[in-house]
Amino acid sequence: MRVVVDAMGGDHGLQVVVEGAVAAARDGRAVVLVGRESDITAELTKYSGVSGIEVIHASEVIEMHEHPASAVRQKKDSSIVAGLRLIKEGKANAFFSAGNSGAVMAGALFTLGRIEGVHRPAIGGVLPLLHGQVFLADIGANADCDPQNLLQFAQMGAAYMEHVFGLQRPRVGLISNGEEETKGNALVQGTLPLLKRSGLNFIGNVEGKDITRGAADVAVCDGFTGNVILKLAEGMQELILGLVREAIMSKPIYKIAGAILRPGLRAAGRRLDYAEYGGAPLIGVRGAVFIGHGRSNARAIANGIHAASRAAEGGLIQRLEGSLVAVGTGA
Amino acid sequence: MRVVVDAMGGDHGLQVVVEGAVAAARDGRAVVLVGRESDITAELTKYSGVSGIEVIHASEVIEMHEHPASAVRQKKDSSIVAGLRLIKEGKANAFFSAGNSGAVMAGALFTLGRIEGVHRPAIGGVLPLLHGQVFLADIGANADCDPQNLLQFAQMGAAYMEHVFGLQRPRVGLISNGEEETKGNALVQGTLPLLKRSGLNFIGNVEGKDITRGAADVAVCDGFTGNVILKLAEGMQELILGLVREAIMSKPIYKIAGAILRPGLRAAGRRLDYAEYGGAPLIGVRGAVFIGHGRSNARAIANGIHAASRAAEGGLIQRLEGSLVAVGTGA
Repeated sequence: MRVVVDAMGGDHGLQVVVEGAVAAARDGRAVVLVGRESDITAELTKYSGVSGIEVIHASEVIEMHEHPASAVRQKKDSSIVAGLRLIKEGKANAFFSAGNSGAVMAGALFTLGRIEGVHRPAIGGVLPLLHGQVFLADIGANADCDPQNLLQFAQMGAAYMEHVFGLQRPRVGLISNGEEETKGNALVQGTLPLLKRSGLNFIGNVEGKDITRGAADVAVCDGFTGNVILKLAEGMQELILGLVREAIMSKPIYKIAGAILRPGLRAAGRRLDYAEYGGAPLIGVRGAVFIGHGRSNARAIANGIHAASRAAEGGLIQRLEGSLVAVGTGA
Repeated sequence: MRVVVDAMGGDHGLQVVVEGAVAAARDGRAVVLVGRESDITAELTKYSGVSGIEVIHASEVIEMHEHPASAVRQKKDSSIVAGLRLIKEGKANAFFSAGNSGAVMAGALFTLGRIEGVHRPAIGGVLPLLHGQVFLADIGANADCDPQNLLQFAQMGAAYMEHVFGLQRPRVGLISNGEEETKGNALVQGTLPLLKRSGLNFIGNVEGKDITRGAADVAVCDGFTGNVILKLAEGMQELILGLVREAIMSKPIYKIAGAILRPGLRAAGRRLDYAEYGGAPLIGVRGAVFIGHGRSNARAIANGIHAASRAAEGGLIQRLEGSLVAVGTGA
């Protein structure tokens, strides 16, 4: 599996992307760094004895603030567009970028196209839990959705978890404002009958607390709700660890106990760290495309490359395509 | 201020409601317990020297699983409907129930009606933060909303925070999937121009992390999103404190440090405990009506009575009514 990495993407610049790529290559991944060749090569000279990294020149860069669709149309030699073209041409198997996520989405749609039958591709996100994880879709590609979109997110999400995480018949939940079938907004009310007839292992509506308790392996919602959930989860983590820190600092004896506990608390925090989970897959486009957090550090980049490489193994696209069984809206 | 308390509401039964009412009365609140008189009186005999509690008989009970609107229509002598009637008749100033929240909402609409000009009342919720708190509306009354609804939630939410928390020109945020003005679903896109022209202290779109960092005093969204947020916040709290607990149990030396830290961690956890924050106000009905968490313990009940009593002081309804300035949708 050859993984194309957008060398120009991410808030922390080229050095961090190259550092992550080197780490992944040392773990045996085949990496193609796409971007300004001279800058990448200069950066690579800092590391000795690295094999498995190829560099391909792309002269343009899509910045974080640029309008996705027009940037993708105008900058055909950007690292994002040129990198995705390598997938299209069969020269590589997977793509990872921590850059402008809208541009990656638009670029993937223009360059690779959708999987046959997909109405709207989604961004999937893995939310780590106390035991295991939950796959959320959509986490931001489609702010407004219809029931058919959510049905497809559920089908592709379940196929993804089977394929990449090896789960058998993953439990699928529909995110709602209450577990009862009478709850939900118009979208949820319209989606519920489709999921019940889908043949998926559908467990019904799930609330915020069901999600964090691991009730579902796949939880579906529109991209607005999913994005709010993901960012609130990050915010709550920051808030609660801040409270724990304040508690530790409030008394000298607590400070001592806190110093002893620090490595344990740090390990606990790492279990929720996005950097361990390697980016969010774009599900529904014709290729294994992963979007990393803009804030990605080198570990996050390396884990993103690993995730993209693993996902591309053994026919992910065929698997997703096969999951799209039509479900009628009628009785 | 006389606060009517639904003696029959809450998952933990009458004893817990009475215990909370006794605690509030001992702190100087005037409480009217409404429900099965003989049961309430029997329970009250357990406490000696309590003054400030009146008991009013209501023969019926609306159970948690009943359909709100039909239960309210049929059970006119339920503790919820009879209790709200006391507000309508001017015999008491505020109402608190930890019972069927849909029935409280429906009962308040039927019995008290809406504040002049309000399209849809909302449920407001206080989310405690590291420093201060944020008032979220709607957290569940209206799963689907239009921009005018959200405008009114913002206006009433700001007036509520001024009136009850004494904030000057509270900062109002619009919950979205990104801070940029181009982000948002159709509802957010339609609401943004209204809030910009509202004369409120509007700070723009806020994401999950902005909310937990305290960027806004009032954050508005539809009741579906608000409910998901509130329940996810509870779920994340449980998840992260579970991780901290696992970390402490993972090594003997951590267990010792954890035992020393326990009171501090417990105090930190209490800062996020819903029980400290006294229930969720129904904003937009003609009365100070508070809904408690079904799981309310006695402390939560007592704090709910305090919050309802404080809110009813000094003309809350007039204040909310005065906040409803019309904002045109045109340019």
